[in-house]
Amino acid sequence: MNMTSDASITRLGRQLRLGFVGGGLDSVIGNAHLIALRTDGMAQLVAGAFSINPEISRETGRSLLLDESRIYPTWREMLFGEQQRDDRIDAVVVITPPALHGEISSAFLEAGFHVLCEKPMTATAEQAESLHTDVGKSGLVFAVAHCYTGYPMVREARELVAAGAIGEVRMVEAEHAAGGPDMVREPADKSKRHWRFRESSMGKASVLGEVGSHPHNIAEYVSGRRVASVSAALRTLAAEREVYDNAYLTVEYEGGAVGRIWSSYVAAGSEHGLRFRIFGDEGSLQWRQEDPEYLWMLRPGEPAERISRGMARTSAASRAATRIAAGHPEGYLMAFANIYRDFLSAIVLHNLGEDPSPALRMLPTADDGRSTMELISSAVASHERSGAWTPLRLDWAGGRG
Amino acid sequence: MNMTSDASITRLGRQLRLGFVGGGLDSVIGNAHLIALRTDGMAQLVAGAFSINPEISRETGRSLLLDESRIYPTWREMLFGEQQRDDRIDAVVVITPPALHGEISSAFLEAGFHVLCEKPMTATAEQAESLHTDVGKSGLVFAVAHCYTGYPMVREARELVAAGAIGEVRMVEAEHAAGGPDMVREPADKSKRHWRFRESSMGKASVLGEVGSHPHNIAEYVSGRRVASVSAALRTLAAEREVYDNAYLTVEYEGGAVGRIWSSYVAAGSEHGLRFRIFGDEGSLQWRQEDPEYLWMLRPGEPAERISRGMARTSAASRAATRIAAGHPEGYLMAFANIYRDFLSAIVLHNLGEDPSPALRMLPTADDGRSTMELISSAVASHERSGAWTPLRLDWAGGRG
Amino acid sequence: MNMTSDASITRLGRQLRLGFVGGGLDSVIGNAHLIALRTDGMAQLVAGAFSINPEISRETGRSLLLDESRIYPTWREMLFGEQQRDDRIDAVVVITPPALHGEISSAFLEAGFHVLCEKPMTATAEQAESLHTDVGKSGLVFAVAHCYTGYPMVREARELVAAGAIGEVRMVEAEHAAGGPDMVREPADKSKRHWRFRESSMGKASVLGEVGSHPHNIAEYVSGRRVASVSAALRTLAAEREVYDNAYLTVEYEGGAVGRIWSSYVAAGSEHGLRFRIFGDEGSLQWRQEDPEYLWMLRPGEPAERISRGMARTSAASRAATRIAAGHPEGYLMAFANIYRDFLSAIVLHNLGEDPSPALRMLPTADDGRSTMELISSAVASHERSGAWTPLRLDWAGGRG
Amino acid sequence: MNMTSDASITRLGRQLRLGFVGGGLDSVIGNAHLIALRTDGMAQLVAGAFSINPEISRETGRSLLLDESRIYPTWREMLFGEQQRDDRIDAVVVITPPALHGEISSAFLEAGFHVLCEKPMTATAEQAESLHTDVGKSGLVFAVAHCYTGYPMVREARELVAAGAIGEVRMVEAEHAAGGPDMVREPADKSKRHWRFRESSMGKASVLGEVGSHPHNIAEYVSGRRVASVSAALRTLAAEREVYDNAYLTVEYEGGAVGRIWSSYVAAGSEHGLRFRIFGDEGSLQWRQEDPEYLWMLRPGEPAERISRGMARTSAASRAATRIAAGHPEGYLMAFANIYRDFLSAIVLHNLGEDPSPALRMLPTADDGRSTMELISSAVASHERSGAWTPLRLDWAGGRG
Repeated sequence: MNMTSDASITRLGRQLRLGFVGGGLDSVIGNAHLIALRTDGMAQLVAGAFSINPEISRETGRSLLLDESRIYPTWREMLFGEQQRDDRIDAVVVITPPALHGEISSAFLEAGFHVLCEKPMTATAEQAESLHTDVGKSGLVFAVAHCYTGYPMVREARELVAAGAIGEVRMVEAEHAAGGPDMVREPADKSKRHWRFRESSMGKASVLGEVGSHPHNIAEYVSGRRVASVSAALRTLAAEREVYDNAYLTVEYEGGAVGRIWSSYVAAGSEHGLRFRIFGDEGSLQWRQEDPEYLWMLRPGEPAERISRGMARTSAASRAATRIAAGHPEGYLMAFANIYRDFLSAIVLHNLGEDPSPALRMLPTADDGRSTMELISSAVASHERSGAWTPLRLDWAGGRG
Repeated sequence: MNMTSDASITRLGRQLRLGFVGGGLDSVIGNAHLIALRTDGMAQLVAGAFSINPEISRETGRSLLLDESRIYPTWREMLFGEQQRDDRIDAVVVITPPALHGEISSAFLEAGFHVLCEKPMTATAEQAESLHTDVGKSGLVFAVAHCYTGYPMVREARELVAAGAIGEVRMVEAEHAAGGPDMVREPADKSKRHWRFRESSMGKASVLGEVGSHPHNIAEYVSGRRVASVSAALRTLAAEREVYDNAYLTVEYEGGAVGRIWSSYVAAGSEHGLRFRIFGDEGSLQWRQEDPEYLWMLRPGEPAERISRGMARTSAASRAATRIAAGHPEGYLMAFANIYRDFLSAIVLHNLGEDPSPALRMLPTADDGRSTMELISSAVASHERSGAWTPLRLDWAGGRG
Repeated sequence: MNMTSDASITRLGRQLRLGFVGGGLDSVIGNAHLIALRTDGMAQLVAGAFSINPEISRETGRSLLLDESRIYPTWREMLFGEQQRDDRIDAVVVITPPALHGEISSAFLEAGFHVLCEKPMTATAEQAESLHTDVGKSGLVFAVAHCYTGYPMVREARELVAAGAIGEVRMVEAEHAAGGPDMVREPADKSKRHWRFRESSMGKASVLGEVGSHPHNIAEYVSGRRVASVSAALRTLAAEREVYDNAYLTVEYEGGAVGRIWSSYVAAGSEHGLRFRIFGDEGSLQWRQEDPEYLWMLRPGEPAERISRGMARTSAASRAATRIAAGHPEGYLMAFANIYRDFLSAIVLHNLGEDPSPALRMLPTADDGRSTMELISSAVASHERSGAWTPLRLDWAGGRG
Repeated sequence: MNMTSDASITRLGRQLRLGFVGGGLDSVIGNAHLIALRTDGMAQLVAGAFSINPEISRETGRSLLLDESRIYPTWREMLFGEQQRDDRIDAVVVITPPALHGEISSAFLEAGFHVLCEKPMTATAEQAESLHTDVGKSGLVFAVAHCYTGYPMVREARELVAAGAIGEVRMVEAEHAAGGPDMVREPADKSKRHWRFRESSMGKASVLGEVGSHPHNIAEYVSGRRVASVSAALRTLAAEREVYDNAYLTVEYEGGAVGRIWSSYVAAGSEHGLRFRIFGDEGSLQWRQEDPEYLWMLRPGEPAERISRGMARTSAASRAATRIAAGHPEGYLMAFANIYRDFLSAIVLHNLGEDPSPALRMLPTADDGRSTMELISSAVASHERSGAWTPLRLDWAGGRG
């Protein structure tokens, strides 16, 4: 058995200590972070500024039985407070709205804390560039919590593509088309509108960051290629909505493959809607987040193969991301836990003075986060030019990788 | 039991007589036409010019036990020969390469024969306009054999959308992404290249007519809306291929709905690949040609409904297109047989001096065929303008609709 | 293209002539027979005694545009009448209730007509033995219309098992668990009870013949093994029903494999319900009639393989039973048409003075039909002995094959 | 958000303390227990006797960073040691081979510790009766860790059946047919045989406890009915195996419903294989462990409904067992975590002096565990009597519930 209290933790002799900024009782995603953090016993949550509302922050911290002195009303007080402690946190998890990601992440990195940052990495391409620079300077462990890349079969797809299993990549189809009851329509009462659908929070193209960042990230993750150019059609389809709620992107990848990225809030009846299909000249792979245990490999004229998570023939990378035998679905939270396990393993290696890069190999990076923000910027430009093809900036100092 | 020898045939007192142009032993689709024609016992194939090669035409006719005098070396001889006979054919089925569809159809219509024409209706928008005019003048029964519209659950989707079951239509996703062993790659031996992949046969954008006509037609058929504008990205992805083999179209419908139409020969591993999803503001419908017995209806927050062909609650139009009880898959050939049944029923009604329109209600028309050719024309124009949105001609004398 | 007007028909130079006993407008299955008969253009229906009600027989014949002189009020008159004609029928299809199958089939065989007989072959084991003997004496073509054995992927499964693809067979799970609205409950009005649910028509265990004959036949067909012994539990689960409506059989095959056969009318919500799974020591195969294009092959620790009808790698036997390319579902009626094609091909070969056995290779035989009737007899005996294991008679003169 | 650090824990003001007997690094199931335990932050593992091998026990405890004084070489030393401590464990989890379950559970109960016991509850019906009595006497919290009953959609099925959604229950089909590479065949090297396949460990019918306990438990759990009588056929299908590896049980429930329970190690190619279908007179429900997010409800003549975990319309009981929104698969480990959450919640309520029964409502009990052991005993008796129907003992002092 692979006792998931990672062996490296045994070598370190203690659990890591984490703090949350955001993720309070009023947050949608906080609980997923908590479960992911706990899964392998590698870390404990010991501090937090859980909400912009100090009451909620306090209530959250108490419900988690935290030490009162480590329940902070603001992230700045948390940053200051933790710096004073001997048992200070090892790392911070940034779970705030995107507009704050950049500033908070940079501040904690500068103070020497490792950072796990929610997606999209920032709210603008400029913020992304700035944070990307700060990550590079810090020498610390930084990752973007693109949770779906934690799925073993997404990692398997990446490994198969890299190994040439489908030949040369030609097309990548990715979509995250959501359509729950709270999305397909604006409430009659304007005061009940979700911040996600207000232009003031995230800009008119927020669908591209909130939803579209996932299919873009997963398409690049699996294909191993960066989007180079985009033709975009953005629409507002729900009456009285302020922002775009449906985005069709046609993209070209470096090297010539093409693809499409669809993000939507109005795919009525869709429960989640993230999926990809990647086509090479010898075959294709398909995966859906709602059926995540299986990766389908299709080859012309051959029986379709349904590859199960955990099979002996799967790659070391995907097997390392599993905890139980095939046939026992692991699901979303274990995928999320893989993001944590990799992130925490990298910190342990860092703390032991060893090279953290093996642990980082499958994790979304600041490069990835910046790439998404660039895509959004170019997509908006394309849309405003009648869908004309618009290149992404490829001339970053650090290159694109 | 619904004895499928249609009641109208009993009233007429004889089977209808059909002739084929094309569809010989060297044809891919001829056999499907034959089985569809035979299914309900409403007609007999009695004449044919089955191939551009007179030897193949003769061999085909003999294998079908036809009267030697009605096995013709060319379609012109068939047109002439049948006109001389008392027992002349009622109708002709045009199964040639698309470049000949217009000329042959117009000639038979002019001579008073009803016409069932394979898709795409013609090879160019100009030919389509011309044939459309001839159909209008003829007063005869004409239909385009878009066989997938014969599927009961495609018809059910059309009826549900028309009845408002998913609310106001917002998005239509349609694709026909094929990728068989003979498509994903050009043979090393140039002489073995399929005519489909030669620019000389069908033009560089032939993928749009050969494959793309289906998802375009089905999207319009189900949504009840015409495409008004298109942004296109055409690519040649197989090395050494002369023509485009992958086409991404983003489209806007009259009235404001949007959608995408993907046609491909290089979706490696796909066996067929025709499917659609249509989203309204209250729910959505999904259908796949490879699993055609079921139509999925999804509503936000509700259990997904899998509606089976033949259920009592389905529409009269879809029930009329079934032959056996739910649970016994009917498949592609029975869908094709529905095209024949509707076409033949219309002719019977015409011959009995009655209004054929009830029989024509679910059949693809010359309007539909022309609409596809217009889309192709505008898509090529858009592609050549960096994907800029390009309107379709909406000012036809006869209107669109 | 494989022009399905079978080449042998071209050699014979005419279509075969068929007559129906039963299958009239009031019949459930008649229309399926008609479509199957027409599919390949090998035969014409020219005569019939379509119903025990002469009015319905006449109405049926006229709706089919038959010659009035060949629409018969009774099967005996049809037998007599056809014997007088030069253009007499080649074969008869027996589509009556099971209690008449034996007598009619034997009479037509004796008069020199080939016979296709609906399932179950007879109503009792004694009748089955008698008809089996008559078939043997006749030297004519006889088959039981177990339509599901016409599915290409059922034939593929049989060939794979015979070729050792799953190793030595250990278990065979087969079921036909139906549960439509008209089955799960008796109508309040006793006069509306279906004959299927009256003890007087088919005996108390009629569920075993009407429904159970299919999973039993398919299990023996695919496994290549005969059931040797049975332990049965029969139940009447719908209130006020006279006959058993749920039958659980546990069986042992010759050679030691075991399995279960479930037949039911009360599997509420099931649309059809025929499926099998067969397990060997190296893998297993699964197939469902409601999703018939695919055969699943599972091997321990390997990706599941979904084998599609029509793939190049499938057996000659299954490819010969297909009419169109993979990706275009063929469905139930084409499976049924395969029964007709094989039956008619055998007659053509017989008429040409050649060996019909190649055409008969995949068809259910009188041996198969008798085997089912023996199973039923032993199952009832087991049930009445508290489920004790009860052998089937294995000592037939002709052996069991 | 439902912060899963249960509110009751906040009221208690501390995490609960748990100890493991078994579940060490050499155990298959230990890690699933660990993750389940950690998920909601309600408890900490603080002590353990993790293996019969003291070295493995020590290594396991250290890998978990436990206090050395609480890593015990034997369960008796753990029982003694913990009784001495002020910070003694609240409860023990028994993860040993089944033959030890009864003795260990009874000893810990007697010492005042709550107990979560792995399945099957014991190795024999006699042990089950004895433990059942001890549970009754103790007044403490006891549950059997039938992990699959933790799935929200299994609980939904139970609630739907209880609410009459499918009418009166008629048939229950349950199976756990496994067939992994390590199961379908005995290794040539006898020393490598798994203890599961040795008669000395678990008796010849061990397949019924190891595998069969799950479908039996889930059938009773969902149907709300106890098996009253059984007809069994047990087989050894893998060559050279000592024990039965395939068990077919036909059962009758109290009140007259019937069903089948299939347990197997030799369903070659099956990855897990637990599933159930339950049929009432108005509809049916279907669920598969390998696709656990969905419960299918089928009604005659109606569209099939696929009910998703987490939907608003699902029962309070199933919604209480979910942690994230529909569309994000939760999988096996979260089902397991529900067993822990219910068990721990009951202890918190007990510790707070409140009634624990609301927390226990969905948990498998000592009654359930005993029922399985009775089934096994009667099944073996039936098998030895040629499959004759054999009643289960229904005359327990405490009745059957």
